[in-house]
Amino acid sequence: MRVYWAPHTRSLRALWMLEEIAAPYERVRVDLQAGGQRQPAFRAINPMEKVPALECDGAHVAESGAIVAFLAEKFPQAGLAPPVGDVLRGRYLQWLFFSPVIEMAITQKFARLEMPEGSAGWGSFDRVFKVLSEILSASPYMLGETFSAADVLIASDLHFVIDVFKLLEPRPEFSAYLERCRSRAAFLRAQKIDADGV
Amino acid sequence: MRVYWAPHTRSLRALWMLEEIAAPYERVRVDLQAGGQRQPAFRAINPMEKVPALECDGAHVAESGAIVAFLAEKFPQAGLAPPVGDVLRGRYLQWLFFSPVIEMAITQKFARLEMPEGSAGWGSFDRVFKVLSEILSASPYMLGETFSAADVLIASDLHFVIDVFKLLEPRPEFSAYLERCRSRAAFLRAQKIDADGV
Repeated sequence: MRVYWAPHTRSLRALWMLEEIAAPYERVRVDLQAGGQRQPAFRAINPMEKVPALECDGAHVAESGAIVAFLAEKFPQAGLAPPVGDVLRGRYLQWLFFSPVIEMAITQKFARLEMPEGSAGWGSFDRVFKVLSEILSASPYMLGETFSAADVLIASDLHFVIDVFKLLEPRPEFSAYLERCRSRAAFLRAQKIDADGV
Repeated sequence: MRVYWAPHTRSLRALWMLEEIAAPYERVRVDLQAGGQRQPAFRAINPMEKVPALECDGAHVAESGAIVAFLAEKFPQAGLAPPVGDVLRGRYLQWLFFSPVIEMAITQKFARLEMPEGSAGWGSFDRVFKVLSEILSASPYMLGETFSAADVLIASDLHFVIDVFKLLEPRPEFSAYLERCRSRAAFLRAQKIDADGV
C-alpha cells in the first residue's frame, strides 16, 4: 500500500486514517512546487493532479473522502465503520458525504457569496454548523459513543475552519470534540509526519 | 423502505437509484413551500432539513451521494457497484466523492469566484471537466464498460451543468454519455415521477 502525499494539504486526512488502521504502508512525497503532480505517471494515479492518492493491490483511489471510505471498508478489523446492514451504516455514509458539504459552506462564507436559503446543496453555513453543534453537544463523536472514519473527515474540517481559517468562533462542543480527536495517537503520528515532511 | 422527496430537487438522484435497484419503496412527498422539511419529525430523519432522505430498516440516511452509496451496497444483486476487494472499487468510491467536487466547481464558476490554481479541493472548473471529458471520451461509463451507481451521480451533475444551468458548452462525449444514461428505463421512470409530482 502506497500513499502519495504532500505536507500541509488534505493528505493529512489520508495519513491520519492510515495511522488509525495501522497496516504497513509506504509514503511517496509528491513535489507540488516542481510539478510532480502533473507528471504522466502521477496523472495515471489521479487525473485530477491532486494529493492525496492511494495505491492498494493494483487499485487506485483519490479524493480524501474516498480514500478514508476505502480504507475503512478494506480493513474492517480496525472497527472504524459500522458494517453494511448495521443501523448506523446510513448515518455513517451521510457524515462521510457531509464533509464536502462543510467545505462548500466554508467556501460560501469565505467568498461572501449570497445564495437563497434552501437552494444550495449545503443548505447554508449557519445550518451546517448548527447541525454539527447539535450532534457534538449530545455525543462525543458523530455516530455516538464510538470514534469512526467519519470523525477523521469531520474533525479535519473543523480543525481547518476554526483553527486555520478562523471562519467560525470556537464553541465549547467543537473544542472538546477536536481535543478528543486530536489527542489520538494516530492523529499525533500523522501530524508529526506532516510537520517533518517525510 | 421509504424515500422523502420533492419534485425538481436532488431527489431525482435518489428516485433514479431506487428505480435502478427495483426494490419496493414508498414515496413521501415533503411540502417544501409549507415548511414540511422543518417539522421535528422530518428533522429527526435529516437535521439538515433537506430532501432527499431515506428510511430503511430503521436506519436513516440523507445526502444524495450517501443514499446512492447506501442503496448500491445494500442491494449488491443490482450490480451497481464493484464489490469491496474488486480492483475498480477505489475508482468507484473516487467518482462517488467526485460529485461534490463537480458541484463546487459549478458554484465557483456561477459565482465568478477567483481562487489560486491548486488551492481548492476541486482543483478548478476547467480541470474537473477535462478529467470527465478524458474518461468519457475513452469509455461509455465512469468505470469503463459497465453502468454503475457513480454514473447516477455524475450524469445527474452533467445534466444540470449542461442542460439546466448551461454553464458548459455541450461536448459530443458528454452528450453521448447523457443520452446513454438518460435512456435507461429506471431514469425515465424517475423522471416521470419527478414531473408528475407523485
